[in-house]
Amino acid sequence: MTNWDEIDRYAKQWIKEAGERIRNSFKMELIIETKSNPDDLVTNIDKETEQFFIENIAKTFPGHQILGEEGFGDSIQSMKGITWIIDPIDGTMNFIHQQRNFAISVAVYEEGVGQIGLIYDVVHDELYHARKGQGAYLNSTEIKPLEEVPLERAIIAINATWITENKRIDPKLLIPLVNAVRGTRSYGSAALEMAYVVTGRVDAYITMRLSPWDFAAGIVLINEVGGVITTLEGEPLNFLTENSVVVANANIHNEIFTKFIKRK
Amino acid sequence: MTNWDEIDRYAKQWIKEAGERIRNSFKMELIIETKSNPDDLVTNIDKETEQFFIENIAKTFPGHQILGEEGFGDSIQSMKGITWIIDPIDGTMNFIHQQRNFAISVAVYEEGVGQIGLIYDVVHDELYHARKGQGAYLNSTEIKPLEEVPLERAIIAINATWITENKRIDPKLLIPLVNAVRGTRSYGSAALEMAYVVTGRVDAYITMRLSPWDFAAGIVLINEVGGVITTLEGEPLNFLTENSVVVANANIHNEIFTKFIKRK
Repeated sequence: MTNWDEIDRYAKQWIKEAGERIRNSFKMELIIETKSNPDDLVTNIDKETEQFFIENIAKTFPGHQILGEEGFGDSIQSMKGITWIIDPIDGTMNFIHQQRNFAISVAVYEEGVGQIGLIYDVVHDELYHARKGQGAYLNSTEIKPLEEVPLERAIIAINATWITENKRIDPKLLIPLVNAVRGTRSYGSAALEMAYVVTGRVDAYITMRLSPWDFAAGIVLINEVGGVITTLEGEPLNFLTENSVVVANANIHNEIFTKFIKRK
Repeated sequence: MTNWDEIDRYAKQWIKEAGERIRNSFKMELIIETKSNPDDLVTNIDKETEQFFIENIAKTFPGHQILGEEGFGDSIQSMKGITWIIDPIDGTMNFIHQQRNFAISVAVYEEGVGQIGLIYDVVHDELYHARKGQGAYLNSTEIKPLEEVPLERAIIAINATWITENKRIDPKLLIPLVNAVRGTRSYGSAALEMAYVVTGRVDAYITMRLSPWDFAAGIVLINEVGGVITTLEGEPLNFLTENSVVVANANIHNEIFTKFIKRK
């Protein structure tokens, strides 16, 4: 039988150790490559961090499969068995330009169900962590279930891109939402923006294109505080493709779909 | 003759002490009032913090005038003599919703010229500070002069409000800018967003409506790293009214005006 306590203990140990390595790396010079497009930056630190996880997981849990952003893991065809889903640095642009506002995201799923979710804000040494059915925590403090928030008092995280002409959504759908809420923010790290929804610092996060490693840990966390996460079509997220994502406080999620997106 | 070292020493001592009080206040319950509109929140902590500064300044430097957001200072008609300009909590909405991403902003001006600028990120214990002509610092580390950044690699801080229909600017002017840069962010604290420009974490910050206490310290800091700050008309900021603000790396500031706003 799977020993989830053991997996959780290792996952936390490795994410902290990876964070420590990254903090030390700020003293070194970064070598920056450009991947498929200029906004999609990758550094030697991304790659080394992913390889650190892969080596440890393969050695300790040889039967587990690994899905990682940098592609050093397995080529995943299904979510059968136990799958680690890893984003070594979520928010690479922030990492390069700011040396802050980025996170390591690690999730462990069993037969497609999230069992462990970890988002580590490396610079602030803040670990958001959850086990399925056992609540969500920020370091040692339990995160309270989300409370209902009126839309006009909500803060939503959304990037300006999605309210200008773009290939993925008609901005006319989202502009009225932006105008209806109390305020908007954009932090540039999907994992941290999900952690912000989990802690109620923002009430929703909307984005058009995330990969599984961006949201896998966030799903486990948001489920533990009563939040809701779906695609823009109101469907569960798919771990084998890119997805649009609407993650929010339950009542705000409902209002976004019934009053603005109208696709649920 | 004015002893600027002494003023600087007191200003830093008081801002640190005010920050300590705020960190302690997180344990207490906040009493929230709504000012003129629902987005303009004010708490007992804002008021107490401003009064803390006013009492100390009046006692130590009785000849100085004080301009504060909460209105407990003087009613300022001109910038003659020495003027303290104080925002006790810049980013009140963040303060209330997030207990982070807010700052105390304190500036000291002489005959309208900024001599001391302090922006204190309370939660992270990060003090951005500058004396005119003596460089800018983050805690004890000197901040390097800003380097030229190509527009297509720039990150700009801009709230989504300004690229939707609003009373202050035609969003058609700014949408092409948003689409031309590498990315946009929005943090919800003018003082911190200016500190982000000063440290090169973002390359510009554009907003349509700030009061003197929002930008007074930022001006002193940005001048020390070679950045540029003007209104949307390319004019110097006015300390007796609200202003639009474009603060940026010098080459990005120039490009914003020559290619997008075209009003300089």
